[in-house]
Amino acid sequence: MENRTIKLTIAYDGTNYCGWQKQNNSTSIQSVLEEKLSIITNNEVTLHGAGRTDAGVHALSMNAHFNSQSQIPCQSLQNGLNSLLPKAIQITGVTDESADFHARYSAKAKTYFYQIHTGHVQLPTERLYALHVPFKLDLEAMKNCLQIICGTHDFSSFEASGSRDKAKKTGRGAFRTILSARLKETDKNVYQFEITGDGFLRHMVRNLVGTILEVGKNKRTVNEFHAILKAKNRAAAGPTAPAHGLFLKEIYYDT
Amino acid sequence: MENRTIKLTIAYDGTNYCGWQKQNNSTSIQSVLEEKLSIITNNEVTLHGAGRTDAGVHALSMNAHFNSQSQIPCQSLQNGLNSLLPKAIQITGVTDESADFHARYSAKAKTYFYQIHTGHVQLPTERLYALHVPFKLDLEAMKNCLQIICGTHDFSSFEASGSRDKAKKTGRGAFRTILSARLKETDKNVYQFEITGDGFLRHMVRNLVGTILEVGKNKRTVNEFHAILKAKNRAAAGPTAPAHGLFLKEIYYDT
Repeated sequence: MENRTIKLTIAYDGTNYCGWQKQNNSTSIQSVLEEKLSIITNNEVTLHGAGRTDAGVHALSMNAHFNSQSQIPCQSLQNGLNSLLPKAIQITGVTDESADFHARYSAKAKTYFYQIHTGHVQLPTERLYALHVPFKLDLEAMKNCLQIICGTHDFSSFEASGSRDKAKKTGRGAFRTILSARLKETDKNVYQFEITGDGFLRHMVRNLVGTILEVGKNKRTVNEFHAILKAKNRAAAGPTAPAHGLFLKEIYYDT
Repeated sequence: MENRTIKLTIAYDGTNYCGWQKQNNSTSIQSVLEEKLSIITNNEVTLHGAGRTDAGVHALSMNAHFNSQSQIPCQSLQNGLNSLLPKAIQITGVTDESADFHARYSAKAKTYFYQIHTGHVQLPTERLYALHVPFKLDLEAMKNCLQIICGTHDFSSFEASGSRDKAKKTGRGAFRTILSARLKETDKNVYQFEITGDGFLRHMVRNLVGTILEVGKNKRTVNEFHAILKAKNRAAAGPTAPAHGLFLKEIYYDT
C-alpha cells in the first residue's frame, strides 16, 4: 500500500479550545482532528502542525500533515471530516504532497493578523474576534513601530518568558525575519495589525501588539519601542495582548 | 422628582440567551438588562421592549424604554450599564424621550436581515452569525419572491403556529406591510435577506427565508411561493430557518 503524505488546511474558532497542541485534560484542535482522522482512515493518526496557536487564538488557514495508507480521495476526506468535526473546526482543503513535505519544516513564512475595535462600544457579535480598545489611537506612531520590526531582529523582548530553551534549539536563537508589517483599517473603527514573518516566537505577535498599543495610547514613544526591541529583554516590553484578537491568516509553502 | 422616559438602544449576541422576553428558569436579554438597570438606578425597573426576538436571534439595534426618577445623565447611564453588562449585551445609545414615547407603540417600522453563507465550507469564526447553505442558489428566483412579499398582505402562511390569538388582538390580524425586501451580497458567498416592514408576525422572517431558500434550491417555484402566500395557511410554507442567521438591524421612530 502506498504511503501518502496528506496536507490539511484548517480553519478554527479558538474560543473554546486550549490551543492547537495536545494537552492532558483539555480539548485541543489537534486532538479533535486526530480523533476524527483516525475514525475516517480506520488507523491511529498523528498530525504534524505547522506550528502552535495558543488557547483562544483563531485560524483562517492553519496547515498540518499526516501519513496514511488510506485510499480515500482528498475531497471525500474533506467532506467526511467536516461532517464529523464540530463547526468550530473545519477543513478548507486537502491535498496529496510529496513524501518530503512537512507542514512545519517546509513552511517558508506565516501571516498573522491581530484585530482591534476602537469604537466607544463594541458590537457583541464582534467581541469574540477583536480586542476592544476604546481609545483614539495614534495610528502614525503605531505604523512607525511596525516599520521598526521589519527585517531581521533578535525578538527576545517579545518572546514569552520561559520559552527560550526551545527557541535555542532551532539554531537561530530569537532571530526572526519580519517580511511585512502593516496596519490596515478593515471597517469603521476596526483595524488589523497584519504581520508576515519567516517564523514567530511564542506570544511574539501578541507581545508586539500589546506594546505597540501602548505607543498608540501615548504611554510610550516610538523611540522607547525601538529601545525595547534592542534591549532583548522581555521585562522591557508591554503586556501580552489577549488571545481572542489573534488570527493565523496563512502559511506559505514553496509549492 | 421628575419622571423620565428613557430609551435604550441595545446590541446583543443572542447565542446564549432564551430571547428578549423574560421567562422562568432561563436567562433573557430583558432580565439581564432589568437587573443591571435596577442596580444603577437603585430602583426596580420594568423595561418595555420594541418587540421580542426569539432565542438565538441577534440584534444590532434593539430599542426599549423604562420610566425612572433617577437623575443619572444618559452618557453615565450608558457607561455604567456597559461596565455591568456581559459583553454579549451592550448599550449603544441612551436618550431622554417625551412622556408619551413607547418603545413598542411608537415604532413605525423595523428592519431585519437574515444572513446565509453559500460556500462549500463555512469559516468557523462566522458560524454563529450566518446559516450555512452550501448550495448554488437561484438568486433571481429568490429576488422574485422578495418582490412578491412587498406591500400589504395577510402573512398567515408565515406565522408561527399557535401565535394567532395574539395577532388578532392587534386589530390587523395577520396583515403586515413590507416596505422593502432585498437580497444583498455583502461578501464572497455571504448574502443577506434584508426586510423592512411595519411589523412582523412571530417567526415571520425565519419562515419567509426558510421557504424562499427552498425556491433558491429549486425545490419550489416562484409561482408556488406566491400560492403559499395566498393560501394563508402555515402548513403550506417551508421550514423555519434557524435563529442564528437572523439580526434585528434597526427600529424606526418618528423622532
